[in-house]
Amino acid sequence: MNLILSQRSAHYTTSPIRELLKLTEQPGMISLAGGLPAADSFPVDALRTACAEVLTTQAHGALQYGPSEGIAPLRDWVAAHLRAQGMQATADEVLITSGSQQGLDLVGRVLIDPGSTVLVERPTYLGALQAFTPYGPRFADLGQDAEGPLPALESPARMAYLQPNFRNPTGQTMSAARRAQWAQALRASNTALVEDNPYGELWFDGPPPAPLAAQLPGQSILLGTFSKVLSPGLRLGYVHGPQQVIAKMTLARQAADLQTSSLTQRLVLKVLEDGLLDAQLPRIRSLYRAQRDVMLAALSRHMPDSVHWDVPQGGMFLWLRLPEGADATALLPLALQRNVAYVPGTAFYAAGPAPRNTLRLTYATATPEQIDTAIAHLGAVFATTTPLAIPRHDAPVLET
Amino acid sequence: MNLILSQRSAHYTTSPIRELLKLTEQPGMISLAGGLPAADSFPVDALRTACAEVLTTQAHGALQYGPSEGIAPLRDWVAAHLRAQGMQATADEVLITSGSQQGLDLVGRVLIDPGSTVLVERPTYLGALQAFTPYGPRFADLGQDAEGPLPALESPARMAYLQPNFRNPTGQTMSAARRAQWAQALRASNTALVEDNPYGELWFDGPPPAPLAAQLPGQSILLGTFSKVLSPGLRLGYVHGPQQVIAKMTLARQAADLQTSSLTQRLVLKVLEDGLLDAQLPRIRSLYRAQRDVMLAALSRHMPDSVHWDVPQGGMFLWLRLPEGADATALLPLALQRNVAYVPGTAFYAAGPAPRNTLRLTYATATPEQIDTAIAHLGAVFATTTPLAIPRHDAPVLET
Repeated sequence: MNLILSQRSAHYTTSPIRELLKLTEQPGMISLAGGLPAADSFPVDALRTACAEVLTTQAHGALQYGPSEGIAPLRDWVAAHLRAQGMQATADEVLITSGSQQGLDLVGRVLIDPGSTVLVERPTYLGALQAFTPYGPRFADLGQDAEGPLPALESPARMAYLQPNFRNPTGQTMSAARRAQWAQALRASNTALVEDNPYGELWFDGPPPAPLAAQLPGQSILLGTFSKVLSPGLRLGYVHGPQQVIAKMTLARQAADLQTSSLTQRLVLKVLEDGLLDAQLPRIRSLYRAQRDVMLAALSRHMPDSVHWDVPQGGMFLWLRLPEGADATALLPLALQRNVAYVPGTAFYAAGPAPRNTLRLTYATATPEQIDTAIAHLGAVFATTTPLAIPRHDAPVLET
Repeated sequence: MNLILSQRSAHYTTSPIRELLKLTEQPGMISLAGGLPAADSFPVDALRTACAEVLTTQAHGALQYGPSEGIAPLRDWVAAHLRAQGMQATADEVLITSGSQQGLDLVGRVLIDPGSTVLVERPTYLGALQAFTPYGPRFADLGQDAEGPLPALESPARMAYLQPNFRNPTGQTMSAARRAQWAQALRASNTALVEDNPYGELWFDGPPPAPLAAQLPGQSILLGTFSKVLSPGLRLGYVHGPQQVIAKMTLARQAADLQTSSLTQRLVLKVLEDGLLDAQLPRIRSLYRAQRDVMLAALSRHMPDSVHWDVPQGGMFLWLRLPEGADATALLPLALQRNVAYVPGTAFYAAGPAPRNTLRLTYATATPEQIDTAIAHLGAVFATTTPLAIPRHDAPVLET
């Protein structure tokens, strides 16, 4: 190859973890790694019907170029949906994106300069780090307690990137009191809020508090997605923000890929207008709650006493803490030998030394039987290899 | 609004032309401006059938996350399609993108550093300039003769961006002899070729020569799209290049938007495997050839003698040259008053002073009747307002 690559391209790197996780495609592997929605949650029949109708009644619109900001009725729907959550939102403050990941890239394009300080939770969402990194930010980790990240903004920052609801990777939700403190701190320091809310609808016992962005009109960007409530394969999400920022992001995305598919926008609009979410959301919540309960029960049965976790109240993820001295990255190959995959926690730390003894599990993707089997295997791996591990008296002995 | 925007965001600008062209959405407007495929060319029935089948037999794959590089059988199809055009291509040298525009952005991300020299045709494709500009290149215009752009590479450049086939905006095709000269010059100077080929299949009397990239294996990127032969609303294109470049682009697009829609990839694969292009391509070629002929006849009837054009042998565009001293941008409002839109040529020049007297027309979008009406109106505008205009004796007098 004779081509000279850009210096920027050095930011686009693969990781040893990703290489290991390619093994998750092998037959027989139970993956608790990727945040894939349960296939059973997909509204297949509704989308098939919608596709037949859209390609009958509005085929030319669905197959032709369309506006870069997204089709007007879908922007209207999103604005109304956000208003129902307590936001002030109008359609011209909404940009339809090809999934939330594109929203993160557009945040990077329009808000981050080389050297800009970006405040992030510790740990935080890996995909956001990947999206922002090519734009050259300086990541600064936030402190953390049981109510969420701490709003201690000692020095000026360009923005704070937060996932207040059922955060990826820990499953934690920010308390209402902490949200109020954050709103005050961000307002006082004139720091932009970038609130990422892919999991807010996936609550189990009750909805989370209103978006933090609702308290910061004109100073906040909110990212949402249909990936977790309808289908990630459609690639449909949205960004809400001040109209001037949305206008810049629209020009940026025009340069990047013109627009989101006219067809998938109309498919999603059709099922939304038909009220599909009214049936879909309770179904997904109850499915994921049941699978979370299976995972919690399996963890109690199979994990050594030295392994700890919190109980997520929504979303797709559970965060496991092995004892000090254990290394979840070093243990991954042993888990993969038993056909079980997870993501080591080190992937989710932006700055500062990452603890080696954490890992992320999802209960969303695998069946209850697979979850139980997988956790039993992980329990065996952690029981026999973890320093300081004290096996529970009822931990089963598994064949490898 | 209290947010601080990135310095990069200054590159994302709208233009007075774009604002004027928003008027093309008004009812009654005949747009010869945007490069929109004819709605009659869309294979609606085939896509509706494919959608029903894909969402029946492979719904979970179509609605779930998939690989960032695209689904394997579609990459295979593209590689075979390129081999049939004389390229050396394997599936792992192919990245599926959300339209060609995303391919251009990925070229910018992975190949352009601030200050990199990018050689471009004069005039060249506006969307490429928009995609590359945020990465800070120095554009250098190429000289031009009847065989195409001149391969005079006096100083080292990072890459040459070329559209050898039925180029947007001029409709010109590079001769086979000129392609050979370019291959030699690029090889001698070790300059990367970025070949953009959205229109190559849309030939009228015979296919264009083989891609220039076929002569430069390992040193070329080829961009293709399904937008002009199936549907632009699906947002599906591809990039071919050296495997290491494709791997970098795959990581870059993972950070940018993860992947192209799993559903639209499967829809397009289905109609391709069913052989739809065998029927579709002859139909589009004959449709556009007929509409080109209508435009040529209308131009001969309605334009003053001082207006000149070449006869495009394929693609979607025709380039009009008004006499020296005329200003196509200044005349656009007069055309819009008569409900006709075009794109002034100044939009397509990267560097150096842009001639004011050129404009781009498309014969792809409007019906034959609309084309004739629109050209009659334009003829009247140019006949009455163009300096040095000498009306043809048979130019009709039109009501405004």
